[in-house]
This record gives sequence, structure tokens and C-alpha cells, in this order.
Amino acid sequence: MIQPSLSFAEEVSSTVMSGDYAPWLALARVKGLGCVSFKKLVAHFGDPTLALSVARSELAAIDGLQRDAIDGIVGFSQWAEVDIDLKRIANAGITVVRYTDAVYPARLRTIADPPPVLYVKGALTEADDKAVAIVGSRSASDYGRRVARDLARGLASFGFTVVSGMARGIDGMAHETALNCHGRTIAVLGSGVERAYPPEHHKLYQRIAEQGAVISEFPMATKPMAFNFPARNRLISGLSLGVVVVEATEKSGSLITASLAVDQGREVFAVPGEVGSSRSRGAHRLIRQGAKLVETVDDIIEEIAPQLARSSGSTGKTEARQLPHNSGEAVQKIFALLQARSLQIDEIIESSGLGSAQVLGILLDLELQGYLRQLPGKVYTIER
Amino acid sequence: MIQPSLSFAEEVSSTVMSGDYAPWLALARVKGLGCVSFKKLVAHFGDPTLALSVARSELAAIDGLQRDAIDGIVGFSQWAEVDIDLKRIANAGITVVRYTDAVYPARLRTIADPPPVLYVKGALTEADDKAVAIVGSRSASDYGRRVARDLARGLASFGFTVVSGMARGIDGMAHETALNCHGRTIAVLGSGVERAYPPEHHKLYQRIAEQGAVISEFPMATKPMAFNFPARNRLISGLSLGVVVVEATEKSGSLITASLAVDQGREVFAVPGEVGSSRSRGAHRLIRQGAKLVETVDDIIEEIAPQLARSSGSTGKTEARQLPHNSGEAVQKIFALLQARSLQIDEIIESSGLGSAQVLGILLDLELQGYLRQLPGKVYTIER
Repeated sequence: MIQPSLSFAEEVSSTVMSGDYAPWLALARVKGLGCVSFKKLVAHFGDPTLALSVARSELAAIDGLQRDAIDGIVGFSQWAEVDIDLKRIANAGITVVRYTDAVYPARLRTIADPPPVLYVKGALTEADDKAVAIVGSRSASDYGRRVARDLARGLASFGFTVVSGMARGIDGMAHETALNCHGRTIAVLGSGVERAYPPEHHKLYQRIAEQGAVISEFPMATKPMAFNFPARNRLISGLSLGVVVVEATEKSGSLITASLAVDQGREVFAVPGEVGSSRSRGAHRLIRQGAKLVETVDDIIEEIAPQLARSSGSTGKTEARQLPHNSGEAVQKIFALLQARSLQIDEIIESSGLGSAQVLGILLDLELQGYLRQLPGKVYTIER
Repeated sequence: MIQPSLSFAEEVSSTVMSGDYAPWLALARVKGLGCVSFKKLVAHFGDPTLALSVARSELAAIDGLQRDAIDGIVGFSQWAEVDIDLKRIANAGITVVRYTDAVYPARLRTIADPPPVLYVKGALTEADDKAVAIVGSRSASDYGRRVARDLARGLASFGFTVVSGMARGIDGMAHETALNCHGRTIAVLGSGVERAYPPEHHKLYQRIAEQGAVISEFPMATKPMAFNFPARNRLISGLSLGVVVVEATEKSGSLITASLAVDQGREVFAVPGEVGSSRSRGAHRLIRQGAKLVETVDDIIEEIAPQLARSSGSTGKTEARQLPHNSGEAVQKIFALLQARSLQIDEIIESSGLGSAQVLGILLDLELQGYLRQLPGKVYTIER
């Protein structure tokens, strides 16, 4: 039941239109189906939710899909819980962003284990493609808070989205400063997205939701359990061009985030402090292991500038290649559409007013000539 | 007038016996004869002071020896000044250590531009082969002083000689702590060795001279001129396995020392501090450029341990290779002599009581088999 590209596009398009989240929430609840197996479904079906309606034999034919995952999909029966989730989502004003949605963060798609869905309070925007994470100790010193504030202010002023974990200490300071500087900020939670945790950050949670986004991959009712946090941390780094560790003891969760960032090919930055301060020991260890020492925001930007130039962000700060003057009108039209922002194939077809076969042909040509890049979920972006 | 090895050995031997410093002080005063040209004289003559007694034509035949240097040697006439120097040296209780003397620091011999002579107040010992430099800002903070003290104490406790520049601030703290911990310390001056500069370090100077060594390559009357200090800094790093920069502004002379250390293949270490402190900016820059971040003395030792294992130091901490059991008695005798300490060829001949031809043959064999290494000035050392 491998579908041709256009059918897939139509399929996804109809899903987007109907806002049919149920099969996605079901997939996210399937026992034994991890994010890596989920990627196998995407690779096989295009639309992974098709997995819920095919015969076991077809699932069994998917290379590398574990028995556990197949059993979980075939035997899935928690539709009542999905219904409760859907009501909760609607009541709480939560958006569900699916892996194949155009608004799903492009950078997060590239990690080994991207979540099938993100629960979002607030909104993700294209500007969030230019994101840097600031993380650190919950029991930060005045020095650590001051540096976190200075760096967040600098990043916000350069138009970066500040990503963090909404924890006490450094995280909170990073979010708050970004908000105060009218910048964007994303908080990634280790609990259901409607829970403002820790409690004293309730007001901060509301401000972030209004001016940025609070997100989580966990079902709505999930409590902030300790074992959720390492998983959460991979989203903090996965969303970001780089991760800045401001203060961290030797056992800090920030070191996990830094290690995940390295695995994901993200830049790791660390802020030094005085020798003898236990709060700087983790950062010093990171620097010894190769993290970039950061004094000011310039140190961060200098390091991520090359990535930024390569990135798919439509921030207008990077210049795309120009098409040859003799390119056809249809080609130029599609290229112009994608210069404004990255688009899913259905959006391109719709906006261009061209036939789908012609659009597919042009996209393929542009991709082969290196003008475009295709991201998972049939999203196309200009190669910069 | 290239002399066969044995004649050279006898020549050097007679110089050592007579304590004839005059031609060495003359060489050090020759205009146009830099330390690199001086090395050419050593390579050509073995005993470089022979250059003062040969014809211009022989000097002219030395590959790469500049016209300036030849003119300076041939036209040298400052023997009266040399006499004054000699009297001053004798009166002030200064020792002159010549490049070919066994006590000349072996590690310093390996740099591109070793000084022909060192003026020494106090004494250099074999233990100084295991040396680490601590340098930093003259206007150190309490934090910087504290870290310099902790590191110097740690190095002293592990038997390292602490090398520094006797300046105010970090340098002074490093020397003082080493002395207080009954460790060895070497101060390298940018003036004549009899000048205690800065004046407030007069007492420190005396303590160093008693318990370690104050050294300089500059003639006795030399004032502490600014342009002497970069040259002085190359000796600080040249004597040391590594250089630790504790606090340094962006224009600090310590950064010159660090850069010279890199050129000389020495390890460079830097102590981080708080972002925003101008005194830590230089150290942070060094770390960004690849210097090892140091928190404790363990970080230093971990890094230089491999060098230490390779080094020629007879500190008893490193194990030399064992000779095969069937080695001849004469071979074992010479090997045992060199296990005690590095020796010049004449000392080996004298101490062994063997014929010079036999000694030369054995040394050559041991060198070819990798048991020994020959240093400039016909000094032999065990390969560890």
C-alpha cells in the first residue's frame, strides 16, 4: 500500500483540512512504538497514520519495525483515551502539530527520534527556525542569572528564539529576559503541556504561551516525572542551532542536554565561571570536552553563522541562489513562493495554481539542480 | 678547523675545569650574533667560543651565518666590559651557566633560540627539569591570587619547580607559594640577574636565590627595559613543560608567553574566571584558541604526564628501559652512570675510568639502540 507521491500529498492535505488529530494521538499512544519506529512508518507510508488501518502482514513487511510496535499498532484500543485527550486539547486551547505539518519545526524533524506530535500552547512560527537554547542550573548564582540574562537579551535582539526548559534558575531567567526584550521564546516541558511546572512559574507560563510557545510531546495528563526530562532535553537541543550551558554542576541535567546536542550535531556552548564554584564545574568540563567558551552573544553567533547560512530559515537575512534568467514562468513562480517560506507540496500546488504533475516535475528539477531541498513530510525549502 | 669528537670533548673539558667564562660573555655581547646564529656556531665548532679565535674565512664558510654576526665576532673588542662583568659576577656570587655545561637546563636547549649563557643567582638543579610556569596579571584580583596559590602549592607538592617572572601579582604569588611549600622555584628576569625588580620584591628575590634560582640571559648591568620582557618570556616557557596563565587581560604579556609556549611545543593552560571580568578575558581567549582549561593541579598533571614520561629528567619517577642481561661490563657501567643523571662526554670518560675511544663507541651503540639520547654540547641522557 505504498502510495504514489501525489496521493500522499492529497492524503496529507485532507488530513490537515479536517484537523483529524485522532489517529496521530493514537499513534503517539501506541505501546512499543518509539520515535525511531515512527520514522519507519513515515518512510514507508508517507502518512504514518495509515499504519493504523493496514493489515498486520503489511506492517510485518516494513524493514526493521519491531514486533512490539506491530503488536501495539494492530492491538491499539485506547480510542476512549484519545477522545478524552481531544476534548482536553480543545478546552485548553492547545494546538496539535503533527510531524507532517508544515509548521512542525524543520530542525526538529532532522533528529533521530522526532516526536510524532507536539502539543503546543501558543504558536510555533517560521522565525523559530533561528533558535538557540539556554539551559542551566536550577539553583543558579547571581552571576549565572546575570550571564543568562545578558545572553538571552543578546539573542533576542538578534532575532533568535530562546529555547529552554522553564525550570527554576537559568531556564526561567532565559525565558523571562527574551519576553522582556519582546523576543520569541519556546519552553519545552517534561509534563503535559497544560501543566505549568514548577508552580511558581505559572505566570511565566502564561506569558510564554502568549508571546511564544509552550510545547510538549507528552500526552496532556502526563505528570512532570523525573524520567521524562532526558527525553524532553532532546527536544530543547533538537529545536536549536546550539545549546548554551550557563551554570551546571557535575550532575546537572544540562550536561545531558549538551550531550544530546552533540549527538544531534548541534553546537554546544558553555559559560565559564570561577574555579572552585561547583556550579561552574559542569560548564568547565564541557569546555574541556570541546564546547565553545562563551563570554558574549557574539561568541555564539560567530559559531552558528555558517549553520545559519545553510539553514532553511526564511529570516530574510540569508541570500538564496538566483535562478537563471531564462527559467520558465512556472519555475520562477514556484521559486518565488518558496523564497517567502518553506511550503508543503499541497500548499505549493494550491498557491501556484499549477497542475500537480507540473509542480512535482519542477520541484524535482529544482531539487536536482540544488536550488531546493526536500524535508520530511514533503516540505520544500530553498537551499541557501 | 672542525675538530674530531674526542678533541672537542677535551676542549670542552678544559674549559669547564678552568671556569673560563670570558669568551662566553664575549660571545653573548657580540653585536649581530643572535641566539639562532649562536646555535650555528655550536653545530659547527662544538665549542662555540672557538669562533673567537678562527679566521674570518672559516666563519664565512659556515652555512647561514650572517655577515653581521661575522663582523661582530671578528671585530669584537669589548674585552674590558667582559672583565668588568666577570668582577661583578664574582662579587655578587653569580654563577654563569654555559650552553654546553651539563647543568644548562636540558629543556631550554631544545628551543630555537637558547641563550649562550645564563646568569644564575642561586642554583639550577636536575629537579628543575620537571618545571611548570605560572604567569599572569600584575594587577591580579583576590580570586586570581587564590588560584595561583592553589596551583603553585599543588605543583610544589608534586615536586614540580614553579617557574615565573617575579612580577607583581600572579608571578609573585606563584614564587612565594612554592617557597612556602618548600618547593623549588625559578624566577626569570628581564634585567641583569643582580637587580631585584620590582623593588618591593627584594625580599622575595633573596628567598628565591636561596631556595631556587633567579636567572637572566642579560648582561649584569641590564635595566628592566620593556623590550627585554618578550625575550625573557621565551625562557619562562622554554624552561617549562607547560605554562599556566592565571589571569590575563587581552593585552597581557602572559599571552606572549603563551604564544611562545605554543611555538616551543609546550602545553598551554588557562584558568577561567567570570565573564565580564577584564582580567579573565585573555585566559578565555586562550581557551578558545585551544589552551587547556585548568581548575586544579590534576588538570595540569594529566596533560603533561605523557611529556614527563618522555622527558630526560632523572626524578626517579620515570622508569628507563633495562639493558639486556648479556650486555658487557663497560656498557652496564656507563648506563648506570647515566641513570643517576645526564652527563657530558668528558664526565662519562672520567667517571667510568674507561678509554675515551671505548666510551665513544659504547655511547654510539646505546644511542643507535635507542637507550640514550644525545643533547647539544655532547651531553648524554637516558631515553625514558
